[in-house]
Amino acid sequence: MRSLEPKNRTSVVDIKSLRLITAIKTPYLPNGRFDLEAYDSLMHLQIVNGAEGVIVGGTTGEGHLMSWDEHIMLIGHTVNCFGTSIKVIGNTGSNSTREAKHATEQGFAVGMHAALHINPYYGKTSLKGLVSHFQSVLSMGPTIIYNVPSRTGQDIPPSVIDAISENSNMAGVKECVGNERIQEYTNKGIVIWSGNDDECHDSRWMYGATGVVSVTSNLVPGLMCELMFQGMNPLLNSKLMPLFKWLFQEPNPIGLNTALAQLGVIRPVFRLPYQPLPFAKRVEFVKIVESIGREYFVGEKDVQVLHDEEFLLVDG
Amino acid sequence: MRSLEPKNRTSVVDIKSLRLITAIKTPYLPNGRFDLEAYDSLMHLQIVNGAEGVIVGGTTGEGHLMSWDEHIMLIGHTVNCFGTSIKVIGNTGSNSTREAKHATEQGFAVGMHAALHINPYYGKTSLKGLVSHFQSVLSMGPTIIYNVPSRTGQDIPPSVIDAISENSNMAGVKECVGNERIQEYTNKGIVIWSGNDDECHDSRWMYGATGVVSVTSNLVPGLMCELMFQGMNPLLNSKLMPLFKWLFQEPNPIGLNTALAQLGVIRPVFRLPYQPLPFAKRVEFVKIVESIGREYFVGEKDVQVLHDEEFLLVDG
Amino acid sequence: MRSLEPKNRTSVVDIKSLRLITAIKTPYLPNGRFDLEAYDSLMHLQIVNGAEGVIVGGTTGEGHLMSWDEHIMLIGHTVNCFGTSIKVIGNTGSNSTREAKHATEQGFAVGMHAALHINPYYGKTSLKGLVSHFQSVLSMGPTIIYNVPSRTGQDIPPSVIDAISENSNMAGVKECVGNERIQEYTNKGIVIWSGNDDECHDSRWMYGATGVVSVTSNLVPGLMCELMFQGMNPLLNSKLMPLFKWLFQEPNPIGLNTALAQLGVIRPVFRLPYQPLPFAKRVEFVKIVESIGREYFVGEKDVQVLHDEEFLLVDG
Amino acid sequence: MRSLEPKNRTSVVDIKSLRLITAIKTPYLPNGRFDLEAYDSLMHLQIVNGAEGVIVGGTTGEGHLMSWDEHIMLIGHTVNCFGTSIKVIGNTGSNSTREAKHATEQGFAVGMHAALHINPYYGKTSLKGLVSHFQSVLSMGPTIIYNVPSRTGQDIPPSVIDAISENSNMAGVKECVGNERIQEYTNKGIVIWSGNDDECHDSRWMYGATGVVSVTSNLVPGLMCELMFQGMNPLLNSKLMPLFKWLFQEPNPIGLNTALAQLGVIRPVFRLPYQPLPFAKRVEFVKIVESIGREYFVGEKDVQVLHDEEFLLVDG
Repeated sequence: MRSLEPKNRTSVVDIKSLRLITAIKTPYLPNGRFDLEAYDSLMHLQIVNGAEGVIVGGTTGEGHLMSWDEHIMLIGHTVNCFGTSIKVIGNTGSNSTREAKHATEQGFAVGMHAALHINPYYGKTSLKGLVSHFQSVLSMGPTIIYNVPSRTGQDIPPSVIDAISENSNMAGVKECVGNERIQEYTNKGIVIWSGNDDECHDSRWMYGATGVVSVTSNLVPGLMCELMFQGMNPLLNSKLMPLFKWLFQEPNPIGLNTALAQLGVIRPVFRLPYQPLPFAKRVEFVKIVESIGREYFVGEKDVQVLHDEEFLLVDG
Repeated sequence: MRSLEPKNRTSVVDIKSLRLITAIKTPYLPNGRFDLEAYDSLMHLQIVNGAEGVIVGGTTGEGHLMSWDEHIMLIGHTVNCFGTSIKVIGNTGSNSTREAKHATEQGFAVGMHAALHINPYYGKTSLKGLVSHFQSVLSMGPTIIYNVPSRTGQDIPPSVIDAISENSNMAGVKECVGNERIQEYTNKGIVIWSGNDDECHDSRWMYGATGVVSVTSNLVPGLMCELMFQGMNPLLNSKLMPLFKWLFQEPNPIGLNTALAQLGVIRPVFRLPYQPLPFAKRVEFVKIVESIGREYFVGEKDVQVLHDEEFLLVDG
Repeated sequence: MRSLEPKNRTSVVDIKSLRLITAIKTPYLPNGRFDLEAYDSLMHLQIVNGAEGVIVGGTTGEGHLMSWDEHIMLIGHTVNCFGTSIKVIGNTGSNSTREAKHATEQGFAVGMHAALHINPYYGKTSLKGLVSHFQSVLSMGPTIIYNVPSRTGQDIPPSVIDAISENSNMAGVKECVGNERIQEYTNKGIVIWSGNDDECHDSRWMYGATGVVSVTSNLVPGLMCELMFQGMNPLLNSKLMPLFKWLFQEPNPIGLNTALAQLGVIRPVFRLPYQPLPFAKRVEFVKIVESIGREYFVGEKDVQVLHDEEFLLVDG
Repeated sequence: MRSLEPKNRTSVVDIKSLRLITAIKTPYLPNGRFDLEAYDSLMHLQIVNGAEGVIVGGTTGEGHLMSWDEHIMLIGHTVNCFGTSIKVIGNTGSNSTREAKHATEQGFAVGMHAALHINPYYGKTSLKGLVSHFQSVLSMGPTIIYNVPSRTGQDIPPSVIDAISENSNMAGVKECVGNERIQEYTNKGIVIWSGNDDECHDSRWMYGATGVVSVTSNLVPGLMCELMFQGMNPLLNSKLMPLFKWLFQEPNPIGLNTALAQLGVIRPVFRLPYQPLPFAKRVEFVKIVESIGREYFVGEKDVQVLHDEEFLLVDG
């Protein structure tokens, strides 16, 4: 189903150099459908504040709560509106090889610049199965492999990455296992993005990572750029640490969703099984914002402690 | 789910001025999936030969044989690769109002410039139901209404068109009922495209139509441009008449699919329930090409009389 | 994907003998989803009043407004709850051969006793394509072919029926073209069901039809049984004629939906593009019920003239 | 969408008493679609050898590699053909609450006797989110909760089970965390099925478990019945231990799929990302079969060491 249109061709080299990739939030309307106006506004904030790429429909963007047609549509929409200003990386991974292939074909057809691929979570498979799974999709275009055993229940070991690294479409790895693993890869010249905001400063400046796929940059894109672009900065890293900790006290994107709603840049609508952080934590967030400085956060409204009844949970 | 991105906004005025819109063919690979390389090449041929718009996934493009995710993907792909060179009109109509709304939202989200909407074929409805159906989708962006009673089993009468013509997104009507009806509309200032290649010359130059949504322009885009752009030309119209007749002897796109395969610009793959025209008709086509001149037709290979066994029919 | 389980095997002979098949209504909840409680109650009324078969998701049941998963689920549900009391015929036809095959496989897998297949409406095809389309699905189990050119835009001519009649799964034809055509088929021993309530008495008793696929039997199942089971009865036929006329003044199932809501056996919820008949027609229906006798109609509530604001139209 | 049909009502008590529930394998044809003939034959073997329930489309049955329409169809098929002989438990869980609700509604509509629900794997959520997720589906019918942190990346703690145990549809927990956790539940009167074949003997006879949801019973249903029905039997447990170990050396169902193909009861077709165990392991399996006794295993052919080229891997 491949297209040879120049507009659909992207270079792996362009992907390999990205330093700040934001795992962009997907905002919802009260009826549970996408709020594209809010989404476009979040995308603008990323672009003007320096992010170089976005992951569309990642775990942060709740791709696992989308139907595939919603998911591909959102990739196509992002490419169409913002594809000349920022690299669009579609999370077209799946624990089903068939689904991953189909979604990746479609994602590249609508113009995404790269694919993010997870190993088969939940179902899992053998190492041989992992390699086959990734090889089934690598031919289609630039690809980032995503390793997050705390979600998938299965580590992608270096042997698997080595086996697929010969492929010219292999851009690198979004790695969540830690800096020791990152060092092992960067020693071999494999491009790495940290998948943990609280480690990314060290990953980048001490362990050879190229950058980060960040959740926090949804909130403070400018500061995350500073952290990734302008050299070692332990002071800034320390200043952001309470925000990192706050964001990940419950499974992501619970913290992020709560925070963006408090900042007034999205409607306070959650797709179940996600629910907002409790009131006390929302009070804490206001303090964190004040401590870092409201001006560094996206949006222009005052940060608010929303009440329980202001949140809408949708499940249908 | 609306987006306010400037890149996603198109003007109804731009749509209203299109003279040659091609109902573009969707070509297939032997496995029945889209052949995007061939598609891109067909799109290029349209652009370089002067077509101003395309209908993606119309009846000619076999939208009714696509899953919705394929359909929206093809719209997104076309916008992404060719959207700056040609107007992309997605056939996001359906006989289900829910489906039509969903597909149209998605089509505009991935950047289509206008939607084509059919009345509810097969299921049909009352006149009041027709108006409500169209009003459910008109708010989303520029819209062309398509009237083809020989397919839908139900005429869209002028009263329905009048009722929705107040809507600022209403671009006009693709009308197949004939020139008398066209005159009735153009007298009122309603923009009309002929839906019948064999009538379009007269519709345009004698009955006030703005242009044509053409099947034949898949084959001879340059000649169809000449017919639509350069004033009355009964000689050219007569010259093309045998081609028009040949193309529509069986339900479209049977003739078109057969012809494009004979011209060597698509693989001879049909999705059932379509089947190629029989051998004798394929011989006839070669003669028609020779009579009009091979150089006016798309592709550079010799036109061939394919044998039955060269065609592949897929149904799964 | 075939199953050889005896429980999944049905005999064509059993299908061929059905005299009253009801094209059962699909009722909805205010959120637009199926109202299975109301559906089950409608099914009970059919069974206790003598209907021998039901079409699930026909045009009357608004199969064209269902997603395929809803559609197959409803077939499976009907088989599971009522399959030992009544023959369940799934409308698994489509204008896409691929879809028709997939749905028919699934329908037989969940236990339907026969499939109803339409010719490719809207898209249409050649006679050769029609034969191939039907042959693609005939191998799967007992099959009724449905001819209704006023919906499909294309007549299935006798030559096509002849070509597929050799297949041992071919049960017969639901024919809407009229009694002359019916006579032509019954002369040849082809089993026919009338698709027109207003003609079915004559079709059955004067032209050799085996029975009817009825819309009206949703309302007066007992009377329709009498009409089909107990010999020529022009008096009863005349008595029902005003009801037949009332029901089909707008495209079916607009009248039926309105009537069932007025009888209090379904919620007054319509999926667009259908809308209730206007107030004056609802007043007429009450008079027709009174004239025929409330006791012959399904339900036990008084028949009501619902007001416009009592109807709910859903489109999402 | 609820149905009140008696045939669709099942009692939680009936579910609570099941001792041997087989997580049934889904076999495939070479084209990757379901092989329903082989499936029906596997189901028969379960029934005649004493299994009391099946999980349809569990992780063993590769529900995560099915489209939802395939999945619901398979549940409906199983109910229709075997529902009077065995309890049919549909794995209608999902990490999306919307999907879980939709699938569970449909599963009960087509007659499944109970639902199996997983916590949101991969995406994960807060404890509050877990409770809401389960409560969204518990109203629909008898429910078994499934806890397998090694797949989901998140333990369902007893506090969550306690919070939902008040619901009268809560049948019990399929627990994989171990016998200490099982004891904690059974002390409180919560019904437990072991999710680990190698622990199930002890779980049942020493820690109060009611039974097992077994993978191994696909192969030796009679022996697993003996293990669960006839009192403590450490000798039999020891005899089976090498089979248990062999089966789970790679993520399930890799071992099971390989074994069933070697026993000649399914075609050697794998949906990726699963691949057969390597040759040496297949040799080992033959020895295990010989050591336990071929007569205890399903099928009647000789157990074979299949060669690599006999396996077919499908991904499209």
